[in-house]
Amino acid sequence: MRAFSAERDWDRFHDPKSVLLALVGEVGELAELFQWLPADQAAAMAATEPLKTRAGEELSDVLIYLVLLADVLGIDLPAAANAKLTAAAVKYPPGGSPG
Amino acid sequence: MRAFSAERDWDRFHDPKSVLLALVGEVGELAELFQWLPADQAAAMAATEPLKTRAGEELSDVLIYLVLLADVLGIDLPAAANAKLTAAAVKYPPGGSPG
Amino acid sequence: MRAFSAERDWDRFHDPKSVLLALVGEVGELAELFQWLPADQAAAMAATEPLKTRAGEELSDVLIYLVLLADVLGIDLPAAANAKLTAAAVKYPPGGSPG
Amino acid sequence: MRAFSAERDWDRFHDPKSVLLALVGEVGELAELFQWLPADQAAAMAATEPLKTRAGEELSDVLIYLVLLADVLGIDLPAAANAKLTAAAVKYPPGGSPG
Repeated sequence: MRAFSAERDWDRFHDPKSVLLALVGEVGELAELFQWLPADQAAAMAATEPLKTRAGEELSDVLIYLVLLADVLGIDLPAAANAKLTAAAVKYPPGGSPG
Repeated sequence: MRAFSAERDWDRFHDPKSVLLALVGEVGELAELFQWLPADQAAAMAATEPLKTRAGEELSDVLIYLVLLADVLGIDLPAAANAKLTAAAVKYPPGGSPG
Repeated sequence: MRAFSAERDWDRFHDPKSVLLALVGEVGELAELFQWLPADQAAAMAATEPLKTRAGEELSDVLIYLVLLADVLGIDLPAAANAKLTAAAVKYPPGGSPG
Repeated sequence: MRAFSAERDWDRFHDPKSVLLALVGEVGELAELFQWLPADQAAAMAATEPLKTRAGEELSDVLIYLVLLADVLGIDLPAAANAKLTAAAVKYPPGGSPG
């Protein structure tokens, strides 16, 4: 992704607030895919085409901007996520409800 | 993450629209960290504490729900993201502006 | 709201991208209220306390930042919304499904 | 808006979590309008065409789904927003910074 941005001279657009708004835009597109699906049929519909491919594309767009944001901020995202999961295992012992 | 959810019997909460709203909630917390920072100082402020740790935590929360959503939907997220980047390299040849 | 901002000298924070991120933050808080509710019980639960008051507060926060953003952008929001509804009535004749 | 929905038999789609995801989708479209604009030029660019009309349309879409969500939840949104502003005036006395 760094090479992709650098080759296109897009780095100059990549301040954190801009990349964050781009992330919000992609989350919005993901929401539009699912908004009117009945809640109890959404998983089954997303497991079949044409929604399966579309959902994969939109999830990817969210991931790409999330990784770009981490890169712009100098954050080691896999390390941070592992630390967060370890902390969550302590905060929420098995048996409770999600916050 | 699968073990984490299963041990807590949280799988029953994890329909796609619920996980997607949880993702939106985490993106909102990330936005709250950055909203009032001057755009040209946001990167520098995020590179120092206390914002650095907080930003890593919020980015992690977004990633965790994104991975959970991919899992609920049966999507291979790394494969989908690589396919998306390859397609983007074709769609946006070096030298242009982001869409 | 203009008086509220001016009295506190908060206008200097109110560039469009900052206010938009604040709006995203409030939408995230709204999402957190509803994310784990069963879809078919969410309306009934939101009609009773304590969720009723909380939902009203979060919807209000979204509205407040939306109105602030319209003000920052010099947009007459009621006029724009009425124009949009009139256009939607033409685009989606009675009998179809939402897009 | 109630008449608009009822005439099209769209009420059946309007559970709170679905309308909330639709709101997220519209916020995403609004974010896409502003994401790559330089922060210090965004207000001026939004005050001129073609962005002015587009921004008005996207703000309207957010407002429409916000009002629909309030209606689905039985919330008097203007009353709730006025109560929130009154409370904010107490919480943040003139002279401080936004939270």
